[in-house]
Amino acid sequence: MSSIPESLFEKATRLNEAVTSPIPGSRKIYVRGSRPDIRVPMREVTQADTPASIGVEQNPPIPIYDTSGPYSDPAAHVDLTRGLEPLREPWIIQRDDTTSLELPSSAYARERSAGNAPDLVRFRGVRQPRRARDGGRVTQMHYAKRGIITPEMEFVAVRETLRLNELRNRPEYMGLLNQHKGHSFGAAIPDEITAEFVREELARGRAIIPANINHPELEPMIIGRNFLVKINTNLGNSAVSSSIAEEVEKMVWSVRWGGDTVMDLSTGQHIHETREWIVRNSPVPVGTVPIYQALEKVDGKAEELSWKIFRDTLIEQAEQGVDYFTIHAGVRLPFVPLTARRVTGIVSRGGSIMAKWCLAHHRESFLYTHFEDICEIMQAYDVSFSLGDGLRPGSIADANDEAQFAELKTLGELTKIAWERDCQVMIEGPGHIPMHLIKENMDKELQDCYEAPFYTLGPLTTDIAPGYDHITSAIGAAQIGWYGTAMLCYVTPKEHLGLPNKQDVRDGIIAYKIAAHAADLAKGHPGAQLRDNALSKARFEFRWLDQFNLSLDPDKAQEFHDETLPRDAHKVAHFCSMCGPHFCAMRITQDVRDYAAAHGIDDVQKAVAVGLEEKSKEFKERGAELYHEA
Amino acid sequence: MSSIPESLFEKATRLNEAVTSPIPGSRKIYVRGSRPDIRVPMREVTQADTPASIGVEQNPPIPIYDTSGPYSDPAAHVDLTRGLEPLREPWIIQRDDTTSLELPSSAYARERSAGNAPDLVRFRGVRQPRRARDGGRVTQMHYAKRGIITPEMEFVAVRETLRLNELRNRPEYMGLLNQHKGHSFGAAIPDEITAEFVREELARGRAIIPANINHPELEPMIIGRNFLVKINTNLGNSAVSSSIAEEVEKMVWSVRWGGDTVMDLSTGQHIHETREWIVRNSPVPVGTVPIYQALEKVDGKAEELSWKIFRDTLIEQAEQGVDYFTIHAGVRLPFVPLTARRVTGIVSRGGSIMAKWCLAHHRESFLYTHFEDICEIMQAYDVSFSLGDGLRPGSIADANDEAQFAELKTLGELTKIAWERDCQVMIEGPGHIPMHLIKENMDKELQDCYEAPFYTLGPLTTDIAPGYDHITSAIGAAQIGWYGTAMLCYVTPKEHLGLPNKQDVRDGIIAYKIAAHAADLAKGHPGAQLRDNALSKARFEFRWLDQFNLSLDPDKAQEFHDETLPRDAHKVAHFCSMCGPHFCAMRITQDVRDYAAAHGIDDVQKAVAVGLEEKSKEFKERGAELYHEA
Repeated sequence: MSSIPESLFEKATRLNEAVTSPIPGSRKIYVRGSRPDIRVPMREVTQADTPASIGVEQNPPIPIYDTSGPYSDPAAHVDLTRGLEPLREPWIIQRDDTTSLELPSSAYARERSAGNAPDLVRFRGVRQPRRARDGGRVTQMHYAKRGIITPEMEFVAVRETLRLNELRNRPEYMGLLNQHKGHSFGAAIPDEITAEFVREELARGRAIIPANINHPELEPMIIGRNFLVKINTNLGNSAVSSSIAEEVEKMVWSVRWGGDTVMDLSTGQHIHETREWIVRNSPVPVGTVPIYQALEKVDGKAEELSWKIFRDTLIEQAEQGVDYFTIHAGVRLPFVPLTARRVTGIVSRGGSIMAKWCLAHHRESFLYTHFEDICEIMQAYDVSFSLGDGLRPGSIADANDEAQFAELKTLGELTKIAWERDCQVMIEGPGHIPMHLIKENMDKELQDCYEAPFYTLGPLTTDIAPGYDHITSAIGAAQIGWYGTAMLCYVTPKEHLGLPNKQDVRDGIIAYKIAAHAADLAKGHPGAQLRDNALSKARFEFRWLDQFNLSLDPDKAQEFHDETLPRDAHKVAHFCSMCGPHFCAMRITQDVRDYAAAHGIDDVQKAVAVGLEEKSKEFKERGAELYHEA
Repeated sequence: MSSIPESLFEKATRLNEAVTSPIPGSRKIYVRGSRPDIRVPMREVTQADTPASIGVEQNPPIPIYDTSGPYSDPAAHVDLTRGLEPLREPWIIQRDDTTSLELPSSAYARERSAGNAPDLVRFRGVRQPRRARDGGRVTQMHYAKRGIITPEMEFVAVRETLRLNELRNRPEYMGLLNQHKGHSFGAAIPDEITAEFVREELARGRAIIPANINHPELEPMIIGRNFLVKINTNLGNSAVSSSIAEEVEKMVWSVRWGGDTVMDLSTGQHIHETREWIVRNSPVPVGTVPIYQALEKVDGKAEELSWKIFRDTLIEQAEQGVDYFTIHAGVRLPFVPLTARRVTGIVSRGGSIMAKWCLAHHRESFLYTHFEDICEIMQAYDVSFSLGDGLRPGSIADANDEAQFAELKTLGELTKIAWERDCQVMIEGPGHIPMHLIKENMDKELQDCYEAPFYTLGPLTTDIAPGYDHITSAIGAAQIGWYGTAMLCYVTPKEHLGLPNKQDVRDGIIAYKIAAHAADLAKGHPGAQLRDNALSKARFEFRWLDQFNLSLDPDKAQEFHDETLPRDAHKVAHFCSMCGPHFCAMRITQDVRDYAAAHGIDDVQKAVAVGLEEKSKEFKERGAELYHEA
């Protein structure tokens, strides 16, 4: 603690209440798995009864997939200086295939822990890193291939199921579970997500559970085409500095709104320490782009990068607990000139760093030539690959070009190599793509990369709306999610223009939750429509608070509503703010129901079926005159 | 003028500068047609030269479709109390098939003009309504079927072409006009939009030009599958009262951001006068839902509606100059009970009014039984039909159900009847639809309604995001636009929650301009990619101001950018705000170009093609080891 007064330290590590208060109208529940230490968090939105004027009915609570971690649980006490509970630790230890290290293996990490960082930024909790014993493999894919169902696999099975197996047997959920048959373009979504299904999907590489053995704090989640579509959010302070507490707060903010993973893209000076704080306190997988930090270590001079520096960086981050690494190993020397005639060249930071290195040395990328060495590191900690698309198009004009698809094919080759080592892999995707070229991306990925999960940035469906690229890209994200993409990397309104603030992060996340959910509905994911049905029923019955609480952003919904109608009067009012009390479409529907009940709906339906045919015949007979004048 | 002091009147009718200042970085141009009074407005964005460090190049001005009317033209002087110039008046008079009426034909309109409205709200300009002579037909479809190309048709041909025929011959546009081949699902988009093509499309009912002879102030536009996708915005003050100037200002605000038509959905007390102000000052077609006003006339009691009151309302509005009417004639008595088992019943206001009337009288809808009488009115003024989807689904659960499609089929039957009378028709569409059921809507519409233009509200692709329904629906709108919808009715963030303010209107419009443009790109509309290409080239070359000016919302783009970087320093800086000066992906691309130039890109490309094959062969031979260790 030395020079920093305790009070200042405490202040710097305290979270804003806005990010930790319980989410309105819902309570945290934990669903138990086969053993007591498998406790899967969910949110449950409680609902009011249907008003007597419509017909009293009890509306059951709706379970919702919850990424917010202990932060939204009033019963949990989180101390950022200690980090979250390491709930996976017993599972990792029980597998008995890792050893605890006295010191970090990375030279750089040892330097930092020896005191090269200011007191205020250093994470104080003591945690010894672990590594696979004797060059072994400790990946979820490794266990899956050997027929082992890990607690992580069971955890995600329970998490994805969202109690659906149980609700299906309860009469109060019957109507609410009605759902359109989806269209999933050949995905293999089962009726029920079992732990065995999770294992099978991991074993064949069609899904990953990013879960570094050095990130025991995370609540396992799965990324794969046959599971719920996930979203990633980005953190990172770039050149502008922000305090570490702010960065952690951004992470907590992200998971509160529904971020399934976060990527720490920091490029500032305390990059190592910031990451430690984030990983120790993150309930979701953390991804990074290690080449960013490696570049910092050579003062931003791409040509001075080397395998040695990069390798040390991978190990440094792997032992901190990063769950997936973006590795731009597909940016090969011969592909680089393919981008020369593009409108926007190379727009990926990692891609351009590697392109510059290749050009400067006129040599093949060291990420490509050392790919097996990288696999060796990944398998020892279970860091998942996120094979980067360094040549993704940065404009509509450059979409689906030779450079992009040459890289994608290479990523497929690398996937095979990683899988031989039991490394988990997902594939990053574009970028800027007009709607009609999106499907080709998905189809090529599935084919060239053997169905490894696709993880796309958007895609943005036009270039002309800077300031609104969360929308240009949500349009593309919803479609590619529907076609089979497993995780969508969010885009904020500030894309192309500046660094997102908290409001931008929220806007970006909600846009992407919408895209992901729209995709789940279209694919016909089991139970996906439950929340829509419940919300729409609440809307129809003027249960305003239930409508707000079931929405993706209860605060915003309530705020907007309160702008138009006075706050207290309306929450039980039987009309909505658009039409006013005398003019209500929804109220009239009640008359329809009464009418149908009085006249017998089935009789009327039959009459209609006959009526339409008769009408049509009549119409033709009379020479296209639809009716007689009275 | 009587009791109202002139100063107050003037103040009430003066527009805020924010809605009338020129749009940043662009100038208004007018392209002449075959006669001097065909002057088609466009915006032209001027561009800076490419910076010397990249290679000096002159970047040509980019023409942009412009809906903003004279308001954005510094040379025009608009006096709201007089209305816009009646630019179509000579065209209408020259056709010599209409007569000018001394008094309005509608009893209600005569009452209002006789002094039943307060001075302050009454439009003071004097304008005599016109009507077709001797029960004739004065619709654009009528002329089109007879082989006549009207000035309106030529106007829209020039407008849609956006000078493309000219730019194609100019070398400075060559690269910028590169475009992906689109996929249009069987649309018949020509390489060049000629006046004759417009005529053909109108004649076969595949497009409409909403242009009431009593709205000579409008700048003609076309709605059809083979033209640019359009968007509609809604005005209207509902129960909450707002001043007339505010309503006019909302209209001016809407067209400034790109609204192609506006619907006046007012239900307040000065509905007649508000409409007069809006129509007289609107450069875009104005649509209404006449049943709303009819309902006001019977004090909100749907069962007291009658054909007589409705007919008078149609004539009242037709003589004011409303360009299209939403008519819910497809809400037939036998279909009403089909909605009884829905989750959200009937959510359309017009639909529920008519359902209530049908139930109360247990009779077929008077809109249906009097459909030919309605046609007679429409043909006499050239009011276009917008056949309303009163039974559209209000939730994902209710999408594509029997009620919805029974109504759609009826709308198709009515379309045939209207066409026999040469009435122009478009068809309204849903609503709430999950992505995988959207295409069925489009396909059924094309088939059941004989390719009459489809005009959809969204559709919203999920129910769970109140507060963000501009996004849930932009996702659906982009898709249905791509599939063939001609006009998209915008949805604001306040949908389901309250009345939109100006900011909501702007957000809704931009979301829909994005959807419409994404659709144009995907369909491969000629020249659609020009703006994307120009903006992306500006982005790549760090021409920040050009990037802002070419965007859908220059103000927002600039504002977001200025938040991160200081305002003056950056506009010429050769780096962008995300990566900072030392770390720039785009700058590195310049190295790539230099490298490619030095090594000969074509040689490198050949080498790659060979290299990939060899690599793959090698790979297999060596047993899936991709490389040798050095």
